[in-house]
Amino acid sequence: MMKICHRTGVASVEVGRVTGSLCAASSDELSVEEPLEISLAAQPGGSAPTSVAVTMRTPGDDVDLAAGFLFTEGIIAGAGDIECIRRAGLNAAEARLRPGVAPDTARLERHSFVSSSCGACGKRSIAAVRVASRHPIIPGVPRLSPEVIHGLPRALRAGQSAFARTGGIHASGLFDRDGRLLALREDVGRHNALDKLIGSELLAGRIPLSCGIVLVSGRVSFELVQKAAIAGVPVLGAVGAPSSLAVDLARECGITLLGFVRDARFNVYSDFGRIDPADTLTHSAQEC
Amino acid sequence: MMKICHRTGVASVEVGRVTGSLCAASSDELSVEEPLEISLAAQPGGSAPTSVAVTMRTPGDDVDLAAGFLFTEGIIAGAGDIECIRRAGLNAAEARLRPGVAPDTARLERHSFVSSSCGACGKRSIAAVRVASRHPIIPGVPRLSPEVIHGLPRALRAGQSAFARTGGIHASGLFDRDGRLLALREDVGRHNALDKLIGSELLAGRIPLSCGIVLVSGRVSFELVQKAAIAGVPVLGAVGAPSSLAVDLARECGITLLGFVRDARFNVYSDFGRIDPADTLTHSAQEC
Repeated sequence: MMKICHRTGVASVEVGRVTGSLCAASSDELSVEEPLEISLAAQPGGSAPTSVAVTMRTPGDDVDLAAGFLFTEGIIAGAGDIECIRRAGLNAAEARLRPGVAPDTARLERHSFVSSSCGACGKRSIAAVRVASRHPIIPGVPRLSPEVIHGLPRALRAGQSAFARTGGIHASGLFDRDGRLLALREDVGRHNALDKLIGSELLAGRIPLSCGIVLVSGRVSFELVQKAAIAGVPVLGAVGAPSSLAVDLARECGITLLGFVRDARFNVYSDFGRIDPADTLTHSAQEC
Repeated sequence: MMKICHRTGVASVEVGRVTGSLCAASSDELSVEEPLEISLAAQPGGSAPTSVAVTMRTPGDDVDLAAGFLFTEGIIAGAGDIECIRRAGLNAAEARLRPGVAPDTARLERHSFVSSSCGACGKRSIAAVRVASRHPIIPGVPRLSPEVIHGLPRALRAGQSAFARTGGIHASGLFDRDGRLLALREDVGRHNALDKLIGSELLAGRIPLSCGIVLVSGRVSFELVQKAAIAGVPVLGAVGAPSSLAVDLARECGITLLGFVRDARFNVYSDFGRIDPADTLTHSAQEC
C-alpha cells in the first residue's frame, strides 16, 4: 500500500526496516515521482496537437514546469509565445501558442516521445513509458541474509576509483549472492553508470542477471528500476532513497528494492521474501 | 584552462577558492561530462544509418554504455541482435545490427535527437546539443560579496518544505543580489526543479533574470547551466560539484559558476569578476 499526497509531493509506504540482523515493519516517506506529459494544443488553421515530452516529475507547479521546459529546451522563445497553458488531468499539461507562433520543430523532434494516452491516471502513464521486459524475475531467488546486504556499500566503495570515492561520480555495482563484487561502472550520470554495467554483461552474454544484486551509489528512480527489470535483476539496492514510482515498478516486476543501504541498515520496499532476517541463512535450500 | 584525462574521467580546473572573505587561486578535480552519440549503422538492403540518442556521459566504457542503452531502452531485444558495436571517434559509438533485425522504431522515435555532426570532437558535440540563448549575460553584474553567497544555502533550506529538508528531493532557489530568497521550487528531478523555477518567472514576465542568483541543491551538469543561460541567469551556484562540461559552458556564456557552496566556503569556476572578496563591497558602483 502506498498513500500519495499530491499537494505535498510525499508518499507514505510500508517498509521492512532492517537493522543488523533484525527486521521490523515500519513506514517511510518518499518523494512522489509521476510522469507529466507536456503537449502543444492544436492551432486554428495551424499545427496538429503535439506531444512534446514526458518528464518524470514530482506533482506540483506543473504549469510552471511545462512553461519552463518549453522555454529552456528552446521550443518557445519566451512568455509572449504562449496564449495559455493549463493542466489537462492529473499528469498532463498543455500549452496553446499564440496564432502564428511556430515552435522549434527540430527541438520538438529531439523530445518526441512514443505516442501515449497518458494523463488520465498514473497507471496508464506508467504503461506509456514502460519498456516490457523479456526476462521475468524469478520469485524468491536469490535469498539473502542481511549481512550480505550490509557488506555491499563497502565493497562498492573499495571497487571505485580514487576520484569516485570522493563522491563526485555515480557508481553501479553488480554482486553475486554472497556479496562479491563482479563488475562496477562509473559515470557522472546515474543512468549511464547502470547502462554501462548492464551493457558489459550483455556483451559478455550474461543476461538475464537472474541471481545478481545491483547496488547504485545514489537515489533510485523509476528509470533505474526499469533498466534493472529489463536485465532481469532480482535485487536492486541504493545507498540513497527510492522515489514512489521506483517502488511501484519494483513491486509490479517482483524486484526486491532496497533503499538507504548503509551503516549496517537498510529498508526493504518490495518483495521482502528474498531477505532472510535470520542469522543462520544457508544457501543449500535455495539454489539459484 | 582545463586538463581532461579521458582514461580516468577526471578534469583538472583552475578555481578561486573562497573561505570566509578570503579568495585564493587553487585547482579542483571534476568528473568529465561529454556527449556520446549512439547510432545504428546502415543495414545492407535495409534501414539507413540512424542517430538514436545523445547522452551526456563520463568517457570510458562507451561500447558498454551504447549496448546497455540500446538494450535497457528496449531498442534491441538482446546481445543476439548486435553484429558488432564500436567507438566511432571520441564521442560516438555505433552498433551494427544483424541482418533482418528490426530495431523498435517506436523506441527510436522516443529518443530521436536533433541531427548532429557530433563525434569528432567535444566542441562540435556541445554545439549539437546547445540551445542558443536569446538573453546575453551582462558581464560584471551583479557584483556580490562572499557573505551574500555564504548565506544562500541556509536561506534555501529555510525555504524548503519539511520533507525536502530531509534530502529526499532537489530544490532550486532564486535570490536577489542581497541574498534574499525570491522563489523556490522542488522536484525529484534536478532539471525539473530548475524548469519549475524558471517557468514561474517566465509566466510572471520576469525573464531575463539579469540580476538573479540561482542556487541548486545538488550537483550541476551541462543541462542545468544551459537552462540558466537561456533564462539569462548571471550567477549559478550548487551545493554539490559541477561537471567539466558545466564549467565549459558557464565560461562560454559568461556565467559565474559556483560549486560546493556550503559551510562558509565555495569554489568559483568561471567569471570571477562578479565575486568581490573584499569585506567592504558596496552596491553603488555597480548598479544592476
